[in-house]
Amino acid sequence: MTEPSPRRRGRPSRTSADALPGARERILAAARTQFAERGYDKTSVRGIAKEAGVDPALVHHYFGTKDEVFASAIEVSFEPATAVREVLGGPREAIGERLARFFLSVWENPATRAPLLAVVRSALTHEAAAKVLRGFVLRRLLERIAADLDVPDPELRAELAASHMIGIAILRYVIRVEPLASADPEEIVAQVAPTLQRYLTGT
Amino acid sequence: MTEPSPRRRGRPSRTSADALPGARERILAAARTQFAERGYDKTSVRGIAKEAGVDPALVHHYFGTKDEVFASAIEVSFEPATAVREVLGGPREAIGERLARFFLSVWENPATRAPLLAVVRSALTHEAAAKVLRGFVLRRLLERIAADLDVPDPELRAELAASHMIGIAILRYVIRVEPLASADPEEIVAQVAPTLQRYLTGT
Repeated sequence: MTEPSPRRRGRPSRTSADALPGARERILAAARTQFAERGYDKTSVRGIAKEAGVDPALVHHYFGTKDEVFASAIEVSFEPATAVREVLGGPREAIGERLARFFLSVWENPATRAPLLAVVRSALTHEAAAKVLRGFVLRRLLERIAADLDVPDPELRAELAASHMIGIAILRYVIRVEPLASADPEEIVAQVAPTLQRYLTGT
Repeated sequence: MTEPSPRRRGRPSRTSADALPGARERILAAARTQFAERGYDKTSVRGIAKEAGVDPALVHHYFGTKDEVFASAIEVSFEPATAVREVLGGPREAIGERLARFFLSVWENPATRAPLLAVVRSALTHEAAAKVLRGFVLRRLLERIAADLDVPDPELRAELAASHMIGIAILRYVIRVEPLASADPEEIVAQVAPTLQRYLTGT
């Protein structure tokens, strides 16, 4: 790790980027806010840079294109590493319950709910955002979880579990259909856990 | 049924409306097209009337406000009466399989998929459309199906079944995440039917 990192063509050097402490975090926070409040279409790298108080070139340096900024904003919201660890860690016979509880806890928290809503809304109305979410969901979540499952068609089963969680989020938090919208989270966990358990372990 | 129907204040008389054969169907077709192509926000009663070749007053006469036109367009797309009959009819031990197969058949058909996509997208991005879908889903589908179920919390269980179907539609037809996007419909039915069966009959 002591070798100098190669300079990337057309981007500022590491030295100039590292000279702005906290810039990366400020850019991500600004991206989350802008995608959530303005939607995918109306959000621009320039607008994100302005809100973060940095030059647009620095946004490109850290994240690349608008799509890549969006992907990074999704990643911060979903925290796939945490999700995978929470779901796959612990006894296998309670994997359905852990998935349901982790997913609901992320959506019940207003701080994480807002960016997730933005991601879902953007992906449902803009193909570019859908493509980012597609690649992200597939590569970062489903493949990792499926690789750890001992069932036939593990990726399809992991995705069916994910589809149930996404549908619950949409009816409960977006459309807000009763009685699901007001149901106690633990009641939802109790109902849904056996379904997820069957998909993920086949029992 | 031989009594004259009461005249509604501020609306054309039945006689003038009935003078346009097929107008109601043309308005509904125009509404489906406009909501699907232009989205909820940009669709207007005036635009629907223009495409249907009728006076905007006739749209109001048949359907009322834009929200009510939207609700009628949803109803035509979802065909709740057909859905309820398909799901509740037949042996109770195969209700999960019937629900999964009916739902997928509606989405697999491009003619019904387009307006459904428009409804889902509109409801996820516009509160007015969400409110219409909320009332519609709750009153026309969940309450009817729940009333026929012999389980505790029948409405919550019917809604959890619906949430799974909606999540599958979003991942398969909107975001198009593999392997679900290309999976054989019958494989999805086989995987999902036991889940729906458990929600709807508790076994």
